[in-house]
Amino acid sequence: MSRTNSRQIHLMQYADPNGPTPESIFKLVEVTVPEPGPGEALVRNIWMSCDPGARGGMTNQKGERISLYALDAPPPAGSIGQVVQSNDPSLSAGDYVRSSRGWREYFVAPASELRKWSGEPGTSISSFGAMGGAGHTAYIGLIEAGGGITPGETVLVSAAAGSVGSYACQIAKLKGARVVGIAGSDEKCAWLEKELEVDATINYRTAGNLSEAIRQAAPEGIDLYFENVGGEHLIAAIDNMKMHGRIAVCGLIDRYSKDGMPPPHNFVQVLYKRLRIQGFIQGDHPHLDAQFEAEMGDWVRQGEIKSFETVYDGIENAPKAYAGLFTGANIGKTLVRLGPDPAI
Amino acid sequence: MSRTNSRQIHLMQYADPNGPTPESIFKLVEVTVPEPGPGEALVRNIWMSCDPGARGGMTNQKGERISLYALDAPPPAGSIGQVVQSNDPSLSAGDYVRSSRGWREYFVAPASELRKWSGEPGTSISSFGAMGGAGHTAYIGLIEAGGGITPGETVLVSAAAGSVGSYACQIAKLKGARVVGIAGSDEKCAWLEKELEVDATINYRTAGNLSEAIRQAAPEGIDLYFENVGGEHLIAAIDNMKMHGRIAVCGLIDRYSKDGMPPPHNFVQVLYKRLRIQGFIQGDHPHLDAQFEAEMGDWVRQGEIKSFETVYDGIENAPKAYAGLFTGANIGKTLVRLGPDPAI
Repeated sequence: MSRTNSRQIHLMQYADPNGPTPESIFKLVEVTVPEPGPGEALVRNIWMSCDPGARGGMTNQKGERISLYALDAPPPAGSIGQVVQSNDPSLSAGDYVRSSRGWREYFVAPASELRKWSGEPGTSISSFGAMGGAGHTAYIGLIEAGGGITPGETVLVSAAAGSVGSYACQIAKLKGARVVGIAGSDEKCAWLEKELEVDATINYRTAGNLSEAIRQAAPEGIDLYFENVGGEHLIAAIDNMKMHGRIAVCGLIDRYSKDGMPPPHNFVQVLYKRLRIQGFIQGDHPHLDAQFEAEMGDWVRQGEIKSFETVYDGIENAPKAYAGLFTGANIGKTLVRLGPDPAI
Repeated sequence: MSRTNSRQIHLMQYADPNGPTPESIFKLVEVTVPEPGPGEALVRNIWMSCDPGARGGMTNQKGERISLYALDAPPPAGSIGQVVQSNDPSLSAGDYVRSSRGWREYFVAPASELRKWSGEPGTSISSFGAMGGAGHTAYIGLIEAGGGITPGETVLVSAAAGSVGSYACQIAKLKGARVVGIAGSDEKCAWLEKELEVDATINYRTAGNLSEAIRQAAPEGIDLYFENVGGEHLIAAIDNMKMHGRIAVCGLIDRYSKDGMPPPHNFVQVLYKRLRIQGFIQGDHPHLDAQFEAEMGDWVRQGEIKSFETVYDGIENAPKAYAGLFTGANIGKTLVRLGPDPAI
């Protein structure tokens, strides 16, 4: 077999922590992928996941002690592809596999780095969605880090029209909560109310005083805040937390894009209101995997959870897809289709 | 019976949130206490508790929505006294009673506001100490809000030489932790190491970079931070928390004295390290009262918990005692002896 030509995206410089993530920090590169050696497989990528949390590795952070991604190489990103050629008995040509080798059309990797993907045909996207990382993260944030939901509670979700946020809104509704969603455009707010049946929404770009806007949307106060943003969002949420309220910190996207994310100057309310703040990532709670798969699986099969994606086509548009996470251009899960998906 | 002359301290103005709590905001006033009416009792105060948390009610806070104490009247404060005359069948002359009517020598109150105090003679102080609010608060903070202690964990305590802090250090040691204490003088640090057997101490006034000082005292990182201070203390602690560390927020004394307590600019580490921050007050956890009384009672009886007090004598010195909470003049529990204690 001859060697394979592939296009891939390299990270060429780190983003300014105070600015956006411009497409110009990336470069499209053509490479020749070698033949797989013993124990390796050649994979053609089909879907790539764009996740805002990756920004930490692409930005000159000061003093945060997080690892930066290598320059002049593709950054890591979740992807689903199909095995073209395998030199390992565990994989066969045609198998679908998950990896963290997004940002490229083809790659060779040890079979041990590839996880067979057993999703149903026609549902490839959902392995990044309801049943994948985004849905799983929303579930863990509400049920574990956030302490669970008692019917009738009020749940506030920031970045509600994003991937994780849209699942958090739906799960909270299914658990009997009144849900208030914050998003960055009137279009997203209308979408949240129409498609996800969110009870009240706030466009933070036009709301003026965000704390007051939350107070009007939830005069009863917030029991559980699902935090994706940080900064002014967090400050406004703290202002509106009920006594003994819980804050599940899933993401601080505001911090990824700004060196000077306003810190919570009203932190003293953590004491006065006996708040609980819990940072979390989904992978820390494997004891809940089975419960998640059972409950979310039921919801998906019964049509009670919807998945929404913004799909960009072609490796050359991956930088634009990624930049769109921070400009608010995307709704739901952001994906790049790197090649034809025979499953759909 | 004739009416009783009494001296009491009035709060005359609110303290500057950016300054200390000067004695000048208080005034010594002589009053005549009326005879008790039906259902009332006349009480002679003996001990008054000085608690930093009371500063919130004595300070012009902006936008915190906490209640301010009335001016030209004694602020509330925990006290123990002895009934002089009772017009209620539930109380007899000579009974010891607890109330929140500190800052005065004598007072008349409905019997329903007085709780009989059943402490042993000679242990009146401990009802504010190990078995009282301070010990109880330390216990709840470590065992409940802080998630409990696994032997071998590292516990950091701020205001470690204070009333609650000194019990937190001792309880953490009894639970098998390595304890690092932060205090405001070399004398206090030496006292912590000698009297409480704290493993390492930091004088924050001379430590320079507090974050670096904690790193040197606990290179393994902090599992549980018992927070009494806030501001730079909190920031430095967050810098040194281990993954999945817990922060129990008992007090933010730095905030009580400064409008501009530095907020935690490194809040993003709550996410990266999956930290848990839990504000609490002891009274929110009545289901643990029996457990606390049993476990702490055993420790006290076995001499494994020590109580330390700084005692000021005379109502006229109550403002000085209170101001000393914020200047660092006091070690352990701060008390004012308002009159002779027949029990000791």
